[in-house]
Amino acid sequence: MRSIAITIVVALGACTQAARDHASDAPREIARFNQQMIDATRRMDDAAILALWEDDGASLLPGAAPLAGKAALRELLATIHAQHPRARMASFEMSCEGLEVASAGDVAHEYCREHQVVEEDGQPTFDGRGRMLFVLHRGADGVWRLRREMWQQAP
Amino acid sequence: MRSIAITIVVALGACTQAARDHASDAPREIARFNQQMIDATRRMDDAAILALWEDDGASLLPGAAPLAGKAALRELLATIHAQHPRARMASFEMSCEGLEVASAGDVAHEYCREHQVVEEDGQPTFDGRGRMLFVLHRGADGVWRLRREMWQQAP
Repeated sequence: MRSIAITIVVALGACTQAARDHASDAPREIARFNQQMIDATRRMDDAAILALWEDDGASLLPGAAPLAGKAALRELLATIHAQHPRARMASFEMSCEGLEVASAGDVAHEYCREHQVVEEDGQPTFDGRGRMLFVLHRGADGVWRLRREMWQQAP
Repeated sequence: MRSIAITIVVALGACTQAARDHASDAPREIARFNQQMIDATRRMDDAAILALWEDDGASLLPGAAPLAGKAALRELLATIHAQHPRARMASFEMSCEGLEVASAGDVAHEYCREHQVVEEDGQPTFDGRGRMLFVLHRGADGVWRLRREMWQQAP
């Protein structure tokens, strides 16, 4: 009976330990996600940006209906490129804070500030600052991807 | 040996079942949270609104520094009341979608639209529409409270 009790404790321990391992790896993994987002945005690399999203993620931009699903996100990026074919990302900075991870290590959230300067021949330079609330999900493959994003004007 | 193996399976099952129970109860519990937020906002009941927040929750409003912690949230509500002492909430509607719950049932997120009409003697009626991304956390007492909120102008 004692060995069964110990077995239960060990089994429960193993169960919660796996969740804790996911949760404790998350800050490092999500820092990597953030850097990949910065790198992809600096390169204006739509494929790399879309790869950071889950297939049925949703982006919430001010004054627009939710962009739900990768097809809608791809269309938005294509529209921006079509409207600004010669735009160059002169600089893009992003820093995040407030990271919290669900106990099973499958969901996380953080909020980030970004500052972008976009140059385009014959157009005034765009110099904008935004803030995003990111909800991230850890897929079955162990990779964190963006699940929800809301964007707002930063101070 | 066989009984130990069965015991492990049962123990692991109990461990994950508890998480599943939390997660499966969440939609009903969060619908209740949403209704409490609607009721408190309609009454302009600051104490009831603040009770729906976690102590160290943070609200992200456009163009302002993050309001982190209940003291900062309380101050914002007090400032609004001081600036608009005779404001009345003529109507407030909110509807939410996209609810997702972390596997352990401790974190959830949803996005909501709100429409508020505020009347004040001698002032033009305020008729505004917003959208919020809510991140909720289930406390040790089993109660869901707001952990992060970002607000933006709705279409």
